[in-house]
Amino acid sequence: MKFNLSENSALLKRTPATLDALLRGLPECWTQSNEGPGTWSAFDVVGHLIHGERTDWIPRARVILSDAEDHTFEPFDRFAQMKLSQGKSLEELLDEFARARQESLAALEAFHLQPQDLERRGRHPALGAVTLSELLATWAAHDLTHLHQVSRVMANQYREAVGPWSGFLGVMQCAGHSG
Amino acid sequence: MKFNLSENSALLKRTPATLDALLRGLPECWTQSNEGPGTWSAFDVVGHLIHGERTDWIPRARVILSDAEDHTFEPFDRFAQMKLSQGKSLEELLDEFARARQESLAALEAFHLQPQDLERRGRHPALGAVTLSELLATWAAHDLTHLHQVSRVMANQYREAVGPWSGFLGVMQCAGHSG
Repeated sequence: MKFNLSENSALLKRTPATLDALLRGLPECWTQSNEGPGTWSAFDVVGHLIHGERTDWIPRARVILSDAEDHTFEPFDRFAQMKLSQGKSLEELLDEFARARQESLAALEAFHLQPQDLERRGRHPALGAVTLSELLATWAAHDLTHLHQVSRVMANQYREAVGPWSGFLGVMQCAGHSG
Repeated sequence: MKFNLSENSALLKRTPATLDALLRGLPECWTQSNEGPGTWSAFDVVGHLIHGERTDWIPRARVILSDAEDHTFEPFDRFAQMKLSQGKSLEELLDEFARARQESLAALEAFHLQPQDLERRGRHPALGAVTLSELLATWAAHDLTHLHQVSRVMANQYREAVGPWSGFLGVMQCAGHSG
């Protein structure tokens, strides 16, 4: 599937409502449980997504589109949410994510991107040269990687409860692969 | 996490709205694409979930709770949706799933299950003896396995579009494990 700006935004637009429908009001045994030390709960994931809106996707698009000579991205802190989410409820984080995503999509629209803009490049601190379309596609795929993670983390809480069915449930064979 | 009926139902209740928020109105390149011959799209998954409501979870709970001597489940047809979904739109399937799930949860409530009921047993055609609590936990975990699958199937459409980021996205390392 080739990158297309409106198909990409259609997905980005739906993520806050998807996580809201899944997580709001759900008992904490589902939303606060993780997969062991150093791993994330659904609560942690929502905080991580908020931090991405603030510091990753649109800020990096601005770096690509800027007239400055240096188009190198700031490194992204994958653990910032551990501090930023402290003292907040999951419901507050879901509201904050919805607002932040709406602002990001408004900023994206205000760029009035033309097809040739999508080929403009930035420099990722670890990956090297990347295009704007790759950045925007990764933004959407990153939503999916965390939806994939949240469903796995929650299912893993039920490894014992499902008894002999665990072998039939694909999600319980998923080793994790970090996201 | 030990099985608890109300925590289990809290999750079951949220799945139709979660899939609705993610999929309704999303371009077909996301919802109709699969991972190759013999694999499922998001559209196929919603049909499969409807079929589960009609023939798997509550019907099997009734078999466990019945006074009949034989508590063996009917085998579940994992491919029935290929025929049953034909000619329907994704939006119709999402509506149908929401209705079917609501009916299932009403039926579950009408059982007025007591703690000792959760230990009652049925016979799965392949797995042998299983308890009612294992069946109900699997119902919820089965929702999660398919949310996990849908996010993976959709992300896989973007394997090329994300360029060098594919190695950073956990969902793109997920081999599939059938659900």
